[in-house]
Amino acid sequence: MTSASPQPVVEPALIELAGRLADAAGEVIRPLFRQPIEVDEKADSSPVTEADRGAERAIRAILAAERPHDGIIGEEFGRERESASHVWVIDPIDGTRAFITGRPLFGTLIALLRDGAPVLGIIDQPVIHDRWIGAVGHPTLFNGRPARTRPCPELGRAVGAATSPDMFTGADRPAFRRAADACSLMTYGGDCYSYGLLAGGFLDVVIEASMKLYDYAALVPVVAGAGGMITDWGGRALADGGDGRVLAAGDRAVHAEAVRALAGA
Amino acid sequence: MTSASPQPVVEPALIELAGRLADAAGEVIRPLFRQPIEVDEKADSSPVTEADRGAERAIRAILAAERPHDGIIGEEFGRERESASHVWVIDPIDGTRAFITGRPLFGTLIALLRDGAPVLGIIDQPVIHDRWIGAVGHPTLFNGRPARTRPCPELGRAVGAATSPDMFTGADRPAFRRAADACSLMTYGGDCYSYGLLAGGFLDVVIEASMKLYDYAALVPVVAGAGGMITDWGGRALADGGDGRVLAAGDRAVHAEAVRALAGA
Repeated sequence: MTSASPQPVVEPALIELAGRLADAAGEVIRPLFRQPIEVDEKADSSPVTEADRGAERAIRAILAAERPHDGIIGEEFGRERESASHVWVIDPIDGTRAFITGRPLFGTLIALLRDGAPVLGIIDQPVIHDRWIGAVGHPTLFNGRPARTRPCPELGRAVGAATSPDMFTGADRPAFRRAADACSLMTYGGDCYSYGLLAGGFLDVVIEASMKLYDYAALVPVVAGAGGMITDWGGRALADGGDGRVLAAGDRAVHAEAVRALAGA
Repeated sequence: MTSASPQPVVEPALIELAGRLADAAGEVIRPLFRQPIEVDEKADSSPVTEADRGAERAIRAILAAERPHDGIIGEEFGRERESASHVWVIDPIDGTRAFITGRPLFGTLIALLRDGAPVLGIIDQPVIHDRWIGAVGHPTLFNGRPARTRPCPELGRAVGAATSPDMFTGADRPAFRRAADACSLMTYGGDCYSYGLLAGGFLDVVIEASMKLYDYAALVPVVAGAGGMITDWGGRALADGGDGRVLAAGDRAVHAEAVRALAGA
């Protein structure tokens, strides 16, 4: 799963539709932000609220009307027609913990897979109105302006990010620690927002784990279209059903060094 | 150092002045946010930029003109007249790491000590315009409306926060881990913003370390004026020259349980 160069350019109509999906999610989410809301616990013990469910419903309603033959993989309501050529991957609120604690750095993630490869991705922060759009054949846009990753000569000068140290279990924990300690500065929190900041040249590396397809599919076109790299910890393309480890870097040199640090090489 | 009840009510003119100090800092900071900026390393290896220095200069200029006899303790330019009855404590950008990585959850902290006790505090986020004001004799305000902590019956149902696991060194690390593991959910990132969220009833407990007077003086009136408790890890009032460990909770029961968890009791 890469935004491989042989992929044809994404049609503007699909980008426009993805933007409307994010708009619809934002309209559901905004009035519920910082309001008393019931927090349920899912089977994987992650939190979920009516904002997550309502936003995904709003997105699915538009897709049902306008793209009835496309597949959908959504965090809250599962998979349908996933063997279709076009499959939308939705995380209505990536960073539900940020959402329920009143931090406006969660995001709505919308991706389009074409023949299994993510060719279009949106990271949308509906409260402070930050939106990144990445699509094959187009430069990544941040609030309508081109975003580029920044050069960084080495991991020792990199500013890194991870949402939480608690994402890492077992052998991932010391591996993350090695790579984090090799960075110049490490920051925490952020969820999908960190990948947008990387695409905009404000962060050099993001190292995470325990991620699912709907957590990273939208990030791939955003990061790749800004000149960055996003793979698993071994430098391989991210794939549905992969191990959930994600490594993004703005500079190839830092990416290669981070792969080595994570492997303990 | 507590917002002890015998303290007289803070005069509105001082609250108004503190608001203007935050406004002046915000005017310096906003145009520098997400712009290329040189990051210097301080003696304690924390980062600092011209935004930190410029914002503190702007605050000091107003105090020099309007409160020339008051003391000042600022993160960037040190201490003057610190034995005065009124001492302003300034952290122009709390969360410089958040600032330089483009996350709008850093804050300007302004506190007023009266005879050594923090009686007035402001947490100001100048990019997304969130402001908490706490002052003895007044309810804490969040964006002009009263803020209250929320009840939480026990630590096991608490949502917690810490800026970074890297704040904790030595024996503080396992102590933090015990308390964090006892929470229902733990979140990372946030700096001073987390204390505002606690004052507003969106977080139940914040556990941090390696904090200095200018990091916590402003938090005390904000949290206390919203009905919360903020002390060191042993439940003692925070004091200048203390050990830098801070524990805030919205509910007394959670505070007491967190003190026990941190002590390993």
